[in-house]
Amino acid sequence: SARRRKEMVSASSSSVVNVYPLANYTFGTKEPKMEKDTSVADRLARMKVNYMKEGMRTSVEAIMLVQEHNHPHVLLLQIGNTFCKLPGGRLKPGENEIDGLKRKLCSKLGVNSPSFPPNWQVGECVGVWWRPNFDNVMYPYCPPHITKPKECKKLFIVHLTEREYFAIPRKLKLRAVPLFEIYDNVQRFGPVISTIPLQLSRFQFNMVSS
Amino acid sequence: SARRRKEMVSASSSSVVNVYPLANYTFGTKEPKMEKDTSVADRLARMKVNYMKEGMRTSVEAIMLVQEHNHPHVLLLQIGNTFCKLPGGRLKPGENEIDGLKRKLCSKLGVNSPSFPPNWQVGECVGVWWRPNFDNVMYPYCPPHITKPKECKKLFIVHLTEREYFAIPRKLKLRAVPLFEIYDNVQRFGPVISTIPLQLSRFQFNMVSS
Ligand SMILES: [Zn+2]
Ligand SMILES: [Zn+2]
Ligand SMILES: [Zn+2]
Ligand SMILES: [Zn+2]
Repeated sequence: SARRRKEMVSASSSSVVNVYPLANYTFGTKEPKMEKDTSVADRLARMKVNYMKEGMRTSVEAIMLVQEHNHPHVLLLQIGNTFCKLPGGRLKPGENEIDGLKRKLCSKLGVNSPSFPPNWQVGECVGVWWRPNFDNVMYPYCPPHITKPKECKKLFIVHLTEREYFAIPRKLKLRAVPLFEIYDNVQRFGPVISTIPLQLSRFQFNMVSS
Repeated sequence: SARRRKEMVSASSSSVVNVYPLANYTFGTKEPKMEKDTSVADRLARMKVNYMKEGMRTSVEAIMLVQEHNHPHVLLLQIGNTFCKLPGGRLKPGENEIDGLKRKLCSKLGVNSPSFPPNWQVGECVGVWWRPNFDNVMYPYCPPHITKPKECKKLFIVHLTEREYFAIPRKLKLRAVPLFEIYDNVQRFGPVISTIPLQLSRFQFNMVSS
């Protein structure tokens, strides 16, 4: 029936992601911004101060996919030799999630030149994480009886087009890590990144060759 | 802009799930069907025979949510004292996923009476799992260089309405398990069920009181 067809389309419609070769993209460097915190303790202290001023921290992060030898890879920013994070950051009070994520991506990865306007498309929200306390523990739900969570972090797929220009702050490396290296590797990547393969499992990856 | 508004709507539109109290629902019992397999070895042997005949096994499972004391719970079928599974099963060759899941739910949980027609709405696909070999290991992606996976299993949210009637086969128990008990509890629930909270994290649960 028409109703059934509509359900099927809506269940599958948003589920195709075009994934282009890493070699399609151009990576330059740029000067790093000052790091806001130099330690985890600093970071948690700043989080507390901001919470007093502005309430719950809301942050947004981007999952950007590329392919190498036909396998999907996630772009991660590596700091030092091991620590990896997704590009993104904290929203301003009242800022819309999509605008905020675009702003953060421009500031973190954008070539700040009118000749290379970024064309990143913020797509599906694939995961939401909650921080109940001022510490490093997050959950993929707001735990029972937590009425004042300290942070809510949302992960979005950001669709790359066929060509893109990135400028990476000098102190960081942009790495393309295959899903099978990330999956279930909580020691190396932490609870948020190591579960990205799970949160992407419903998508069909359309591997485009260059 | 209109474009941006459209993105926001599409990013959030399908993300609200109404969750009704467990007490709204009526649970009866019915005669169990014959178990097809009495051991894991039997099950894997049958899987091999079917693969030879019909190719990759495709299966579908339902995530049905209820609330108790305002926390979302997942309905799981418990066999014996510990083993839990989601309701669902194997599609017939060529069968549509949504029809197949409805058929399986009727056979597993339906009151087979015209006075209580089930009204379950198959919603979003939230996860896909792949079995590369004839064993118990599954991944949330088809691993590299696996060209002939043995099974593809899809998990769907099935939206319950305010009132529903279930008939549970006598040998099984239907349990409502809170997300925080399931999360990260791979020992108890296995890799598929223990990661349901992650795959639901992007949804907003609207807790409806009775
Ligand atoms: Zn690679
Ligand atoms: Zn390869
Ligand atoms: Zn409970
Ligand atoms: Zn409670």
